[in-house]
Amino acid sequence: EDKFYIVKVSMDGVTIEDAPAEIIGGCGNYKAIEILNAKYGPKVGIALAGPAGEYRLAAANISVKDPESNIRSLGRGGLGAVLGSKKVKAVIIDDAGAPASVPVANPEAFKAAAKVFAKAMLDHPVTGQALPNYGTDVLVNILNEAGGLPTRNFTTGRNDWANNVGGETMNANITARGGDGKVAHGCHAGCIIRCSQWYPDKDGKYITSGFEYETAWGLGADACITDLDECAYIDRAMDDVGVDSIETSVAIATAMEGGLLPWGDGKAALKLVEEMAIPTPLARILASGTAIVGKTCGLFRVPIVKDQAIPAYDPRSVKGIGLTYATTPMGADHTAGYTIATNILKVGGYVDPLQKEGQIELSRNLQIATAAVDSTGMCIFVAFPVLDIPEAFMALIDMINARYGYSLTPDDVTELGKSVLKVERGFNKKAGFTNLDDRLPEFFEEEAIAPHNAIWDFTPEEIDKVMDF
Amino acid sequence: EDKFYIVKVSMDGVTIEDAPAEIIGGCGNYKAIEILNAKYGPKVGIALAGPAGEYRLAAANISVKDPESNIRSLGRGGLGAVLGSKKVKAVIIDDAGAPASVPVANPEAFKAAAKVFAKAMLDHPVTGQALPNYGTDVLVNILNEAGGLPTRNFTTGRNDWANNVGGETMNANITARGGDGKVAHGCHAGCIIRCSQWYPDKDGKYITSGFEYETAWGLGADACITDLDECAYIDRAMDDVGVDSIETSVAIATAMEGGLLPWGDGKAALKLVEEMAIPTPLARILASGTAIVGKTCGLFRVPIVKDQAIPAYDPRSVKGIGLTYATTPMGADHTAGYTIATNILKVGGYVDPLQKEGQIELSRNLQIATAAVDSTGMCIFVAFPVLDIPEAFMALIDMINARYGYSLTPDDVTELGKSVLKVERGFNKKAGFTNLDDRLPEFFEEEAIAPHNAIWDFTPEEIDKVMDF
Repeated sequence: EDKFYIVKVSMDGVTIEDAPAEIIGGCGNYKAIEILNAKYGPKVGIALAGPAGEYRLAAANISVKDPESNIRSLGRGGLGAVLGSKKVKAVIIDDAGAPASVPVANPEAFKAAAKVFAKAMLDHPVTGQALPNYGTDVLVNILNEAGGLPTRNFTTGRNDWANNVGGETMNANITARGGDGKVAHGCHAGCIIRCSQWYPDKDGKYITSGFEYETAWGLGADACITDLDECAYIDRAMDDVGVDSIETSVAIATAMEGGLLPWGDGKAALKLVEEMAIPTPLARILASGTAIVGKTCGLFRVPIVKDQAIPAYDPRSVKGIGLTYATTPMGADHTAGYTIATNILKVGGYVDPLQKEGQIELSRNLQIATAAVDSTGMCIFVAFPVLDIPEAFMALIDMINARYGYSLTPDDVTELGKSVLKVERGFNKKAGFTNLDDRLPEFFEEEAIAPHNAIWDFTPEEIDKVMDF
Repeated sequence: EDKFYIVKVSMDGVTIEDAPAEIIGGCGNYKAIEILNAKYGPKVGIALAGPAGEYRLAAANISVKDPESNIRSLGRGGLGAVLGSKKVKAVIIDDAGAPASVPVANPEAFKAAAKVFAKAMLDHPVTGQALPNYGTDVLVNILNEAGGLPTRNFTTGRNDWANNVGGETMNANITARGGDGKVAHGCHAGCIIRCSQWYPDKDGKYITSGFEYETAWGLGADACITDLDECAYIDRAMDDVGVDSIETSVAIATAMEGGLLPWGDGKAALKLVEEMAIPTPLARILASGTAIVGKTCGLFRVPIVKDQAIPAYDPRSVKGIGLTYATTPMGADHTAGYTIATNILKVGGYVDPLQKEGQIELSRNLQIATAAVDSTGMCIFVAFPVLDIPEAFMALIDMINARYGYSLTPDDVTELGKSVLKVERGFNKKAGFTNLDDRLPEFFEEEAIAPHNAIWDFTPEEIDKVMDF
């Protein structure tokens, strides 16, 4: 049946209601949030599946209302399709009547640790300066300089237009255009990093927010759409239809290689993303993700692991991240063991991105640590100060201990991370995955990439060592 | 590059030539064979990739010229896409100057065995009567009667229009229409079964040949296209564009479930198959096969094993074939262990199709025997007399022994079959398949099928016994 439901969580419990007809069957997420705000009140939390999720297409994400009723995304893994398959259009969370705070076992200790932690965030150059000023898009010029910015479907690691779509240009446009534009916008109340922004058009009118590096890379470098405004409109359209901006951007670039649309054609790409609300057959292909684009175009060069798109860091010229792509249980997830920190940003030490030495341990240790940090509900960006500033790491553990009355040690955190990864890999094994799924596509082994003439040269045995703990 | 090549095999050796430009990029196979006949002479053998193969789409087959320059197909497994990926448009085999016969070690013994073998073919009711008169399409009414004719994407095992698309109707139309129509046509010189036919239009003009049960089933029952002429035009179009008629017919039915075209709309289906020569985005989806249709429509009910479409016999009401679908190395290949012979046609004994008892041994033994018979180059249909007539089985072995001067015994044949299956499964294992890939889609376990209220109820452990030898 075509009926969809709303799951409402409040102090009265959980209720299931019919979804309003006007938000079903193609309604964009911006409009749907407006309608749900009107119905349930402007203060409720909303997580919803967009049209792509309703159609159960694999690039569908879950869209989450931010403080200004714009959109943040639970992007990867096709969660929107899961919601759609359960016929859940949206989850509404209404905290009316809820206590002002969760109980904290040791409030003084919590406050003290939080203060140390917050100071570390502000002191660290990545979280204190780079991210608030330029957003994650600060990475475009850095990766281009490093020769690790995959361009034109991973055929080169550097291009001559990167700055057009980089964080410095984003900052300059926002600043010059004024109006709705905001640098350093927090995606949730109380955020002290504020890596988000409001990116406006030439007249200062809001286009999109949370306009991330991976999106600007995917469209701006990998798909050769060299105009940041065109990329911004596509980013907005992806949020509106509810598809992951990494999966979809890489799918667009792969479709360009397959001849489905011209290289660099931002207008054609925008139209295709908008058509995902219908969806047209071509939009179905793209919203099904990069793997399906590869199949329907009969391509060999398809940048995926476990059928999920490889993001914005070339694994040949930043070798540590290649090991994370290959071995992370969800496939090609850079955030699962973000070796860019150490390979490129020299956070937590330095491991030469072009050499194999040290990468196995780096990817393994970061994946273990990240699985633990992810379990706390902390933003992944806390990892920068946590890796560099010993007090920040201890403050994180102290906050958990103070909140729950625990007495965790750093070793416990490592064990937590390991146990999470083992559960995830155990799930994969039961679903039929083997170590042969922990591999990059063959073309990375066959095509050296400019400017470093770098190749993917880890053996299967070496790759399998990453998760051998 | 877009260039394609011809591989020519003759007494002078193997040469590689540019393919004529006019047969590339959308030229149908009927026309391409005409052009290649004109260029290389009417007597050469031709195996070619159609447009779908050039585009490397997974349903692409290899089309083979028959004695009248019509088309037979190496249908399943996407071989046309393999040819296309190698940039081989066609293989030409020119036997000019070749000896009249291959050497035979013991000509008298060969002739004697061949005579016994041929007599068995003609004596057996399936190969001597049913197949020449009604083609493989004789099975429509038989399977419908048995409640094993999957209809409307496997939602029921019997329908009330089956006879419209069955072998009796095919025979009656051919006979009544005359003209080009032929009952009992051999697809190669010297065939004594002659299960093929020329199916003409109402004016007696040739539409298609080798119009098989699985195609008439896929279109006529599974996709509810209840008119045999409409099915015939689609069959011709599939041959012309070079796609497997099983994969494509099931993809069409699955696309109907996904809402991409209306149930039973033969004209829309024909147009879509014709569009595979371009290909339009929707045609790309269908020519990529049933698994991709399922993904792009977000469907749960997708009848595939190892991403290949399940053909014309419902595994719930003909349980033996379900075990073959699940465990055959290429996935859902009914011919790999055709339990229909014993479950339905009572050839080689009888095992009740609705009971689990005896099915594991039946599927295992037939898969072993078939792997051996396939290795001889014999048509699969020799299995009917071979299973029922002891002299036919011995005559088959005697022919091989006489041809090569071997002294094989029946036990050697069994060992040959086992060794073939072990090689195939070894390949799959190295390609990342596990026993978890030897499973039917979940919906067969969840939806009982009319008229017998039959369900797929083999446990994983039972399924794994099939290949445990």
